Amino acid sequence: MTTLRILTLNCWGIPIPVVCKNRCDRIEAIGDEISKRDYHLVILEEVWLSSDYKILCEKICPVLPHAHYFYSGMLGTGCCVFSKFPIGETMYFHFSLNGFAHKVWHADWYAGKGVGLCKMVIDGLHINLYSSHIHAEYNRANDEYLSHRIAQCFEMSQFIKQTSGTCDLVILAGDLNMLPSDLGYRVILTNGNLQDCWTDKEKTTSDEAGNTCELPDNSYTSAEDTKVNPLGKRIDYILYRANQGVKVFIKEASVTMGCIPGKHFHYSDHEALEAVLRIEKSSDVVSPLEDDDHLESERNQHLLEAIEFIDIGMEQSKFNGMFFQFGFLLLFILLFLLSQTEAGGDPMIFYILLFVKLGLTLVLAFCFWTGVMVTRTDANNFLGIKLNIANVLKNSKVKIQ
Amino acid sequence: MTTLRILTLNCWGIPIPVVCKNRCDRIEAIGDEISKRDYHLVILEEVWLSSDYKILCEKICPVLPHAHYFYSGMLGTGCCVFSKFPIGETMYFHFSLNGFAHKVWHADWYAGKGVGLCKMVIDGLHINLYSSHIHAEYNRANDEYLSHRIAQCFEMSQFIKQTSGTCDLVILAGDLNMLPSDLGYRVILTNGNLQDCWTDKEKTTSDEAGNTCELPDNSYTSAEDTKVNPLGKRIDYILYRANQGVKVFIKEASVTMGCIPGKHFHYSDHEALEAVLRIEKSSDVVSPLEDDDHLESERNQHLLEAIEFIDIGMEQSKFNGMFFQFGFLLLFILLFLLSQTEAGGDPMIFYILLFVKLGLTLVLAFCFWTGVMVTRTDANNFLGIKLNIANVLKNSKVKIQ
Repeated sequence: MTTLRILTLNCWGIPIPVVCKNRCDRIEAIGDEISKRDYHLVILEEVWLSSDYKILCEKICPVLPHAHYFYSGMLGTGCCVFSKFPIGETMYFHFSLNGFAHKVWHADWYAGKGVGLCKMVIDGLHINLYSSHIHAEYNRANDEYLSHRIAQCFEMSQFIKQTSGTCDLVILAGDLNMLPSDLGYRVILTNGNLQDCWTDKEKTTSDEAGNTCELPDNSYTSAEDTKVNPLGKRIDYILYRANQGVKVFIKEASVTMGCIPGKHFHYSDHEALEAVLRIEKSSDVVSPLEDDDHLESERNQHLLEAIEFIDIGMEQSKFNGMFFQFGFLLLFILLFLLSQTEAGGDPMIFYILLFVKLGLTLVLAFCFWTGVMVTRTDANNFLGIKLNIANVLKNSKVKIQ
Repeated sequence: MTTLRILTLNCWGIPIPVVCKNRCDRIEAIGDEISKRDYHLVILEEVWLSSDYKILCEKICPVLPHAHYFYSGMLGTGCCVFSKFPIGETMYFHFSLNGFAHKVWHADWYAGKGVGLCKMVIDGLHINLYSSHIHAEYNRANDEYLSHRIAQCFEMSQFIKQTSGTCDLVILAGDLNMLPSDLGYRVILTNGNLQDCWTDKEKTTSDEAGNTCELPDNSYTSAEDTKVNPLGKRIDYILYRANQGVKVFIKEASVTMGCIPGKHFHYSDHEALEAVLRIEKSSDVVSPLEDDDHLESERNQHLLEAIEFIDIGMEQSKFNGMFFQFGFLLLFILLFLLSQTEAGGDPMIFYILLFVKLGLTLVLAFCFWTGVMVTRTDANNFLGIKLNIANVLKNSKVKIQ
C-alpha cells in the first residue's frame, strides 16, 4: 500500500509587476510553505522565470530533492515538478495550437504550451505524472480561443492515452482552465480515461465546491471577477487513472494555501489543490474505465461536439489569414501614399512621419507573417487534429449515432 | 503467422518546377506502380501538395483502401500512409527543432516536421506504424543543421519508446536523412529499441549496399552528388521492434522502383525500400532488445555524444540570436540615415529609395522576429531536450563511464 500526497498550484509568476503583483514575495512564500508540508509530488504552473524556479528549487529541494522544469518555447512552459522520489524519463509534447500570435497582450501563443511527462517508480509502482497548463479563457461570454483550447484538451488526452499503456498509475495535475461542465474537461476525462480526484474524494477539509480560482476571499480577485463567478471557479485539477491490477482510493482532496501568514495577500491568484491517494496493487483489479461501453459512447458524443469546434477553429484561421493578407495590401497602399507626403521642411513633422512609416512597415511585416505563415499553420494543425479525432471515432466499438 | 510487405519512398514532391523536375508525371507513375504491386503498407514522404495526395489516393486506394495524411505546419509534413488494413487511432508529434527560419531557401523550418503514428490491428497483432522525415543534410562537410537533426532523432526515439509499450510490433519507415554510421541513426536504434530490416534481411533482390539516394544511375543524381557518394547513400529505412511474445523474420529487403517504364527519368530522386516481414506470435519469446546491458551501454555512449551536439546547437541558437539582434540595430541606424537622404526631385531615385527603405524595414522586422523569438525558442527547446536526454542517462541501470 502506498500513500501519495500531491499538490498543484498555478503560481501566477508573470514577470510584469503592473499585471502580476507581489511576485517575488509570493514565490518565496510558496517555496517556504511547500517545504514545510509533507508532499510527495508538487506540480507547479506559471513559473515563468528561471530565477523564480531557482528560488523554488532552493526552498523545496531540501524536502523534495528531485525537480524537473519543462523548458520549451520562447517564454518557457511555466510547468515544473518537484518529487520526493527520483524522476525517471521525461518528455514534452507541444500543443499544435496555442492561441493567436496577433494577440500579443495575451501572450499564450509565445509560451511553449503542451503537456509534460515524468515517469517514476514509487514503491514498485510505475507512475506517469503529467503536468500541463491549458490556454487561458479570457472572456467566457465570447471565448475566441475555445477551438484552440478544445484542440489542446484532445491532444493532451491523446498523448496521455498513447503513452500510459504500461504504467500502473496515471496522474495529470495542473491548471486546465476548464470548468467541470466544459467540453474540454469532458474530452480529457473520457478520451484520456481519467477520473477526477475531486469528485472521487472520501473527504475534504475545504469547501465542497472545490473552486480554486477567482475565489471571493482571494486578495487578487477583482470585483468584476466576483460578479461573473461569485463563488470562484474550479479549473485546477488532479486527475488520475488506475491501470490494470491497481486500486486507488482518494482519501482526501482539498483546496489549500490561502493568504500568506503575516501578509495581506495570497500565495497566488489561484488556490492550490491537494489530494491524498492510497494506492494498492491487486492482480484481480480491472481498470474501471476500460471496456466500458457507456463511457465510450459518452466520449464519442464529446468528440463529435469537439469536431464542431475544430471546424470553427479552422474557418477562423482561414478568415484571420484573409484578414491579415488584406491588411497587408491596405498598409502597402497607405505606405505608398505616405511616402509621397512631404514634411514641408518641418523637422518635427519629418520625424513623426518617419516613425509612422517605420511603424506601419513593421505592422506590414507582421500582417504578412501572420496572414501567410501563422494562420496557414493553424489551419493545417486543426485539420490534422480533426483527422485524429475522426480516427478515434472510426475505431470506436460503440456505434455512433 | 502474418506476412507484411512494406514499401517506403521519398516521392520528391516539391511543387517548384525549377527545383523538382517532372513532379506531375512522377506522382502519377508512383501511384500507378504501387497500385500494381502487392503491398500491405506503403509509407510515403515529400507528398507536399494536397492535389498530389489526392492523385495518389485515387491510384492507390483501390488496392490499399485505408489512407492517412499527417497534416501539420505551414507546408504540411509530406508524410502519408496507405494500408490494406484499417488504420486505428493516429497522432502526430511535432519536433521541437527543425532548422533555421532564416534559411528560407532550405524551407525545412516551414514544414511541420515530426513523427506520425498510425495504430492498427492486423491478424490480431497490434502494430504501431511510425512515419517520419528527418531534416535534410545539405552539406555533409559542414552540416550546420546537425544539432537539429540529432535533436529530432532523439525526440523521435523517445516518442516511439513512450508510445509503443503495449503493441506487438513497431515499424518506423521513412527518410531519416542519416547514414547508418551517423550518430542520429544510432540514437534512433538504441534509444528507440529498434532493429534495421536491411541489416537483418534473409535475402535481397537488389544491391547489398541498400543505398536509396544519390544512386549513380538515378536520372536526378548530379555529377557533384556522384563525386561525394559514388555509390549513393543509404538514408531511407524500415526499422522494427518485436515486443514481448512476438518473433519477426525479415524475409527480404530490397531497393526498388528505379526508372519509370517508357520514360527517361526515375520515380523520384530517391529509390524506394521494400521489406517483407514474417511475424509469429509465440508466448515464450522475449524481445531481444529488452534488458540488454550491452545495448544500453551502447545507447548511453550515443546519448552522451548527442548531448555534445545539443550543447553546440544551444550555443548556435544564442549566437544567431545576438547576430540578428545586432542586425536589427544596424538596420535601424541605416534606415535612419537613409530617411535623411533626399531624392533630389528625381522620381526614379525617389522610387528606388522608397523600395530600398521598404525592403530594409522588412528585413529589420525579420531580424527582430528571428533574433528575439525564433532563436530564443530554439535555445529553450534544446535545453528541454538536453534535460530529457540527461534523464534517460540518469535512469540507466548500466553505469555511465
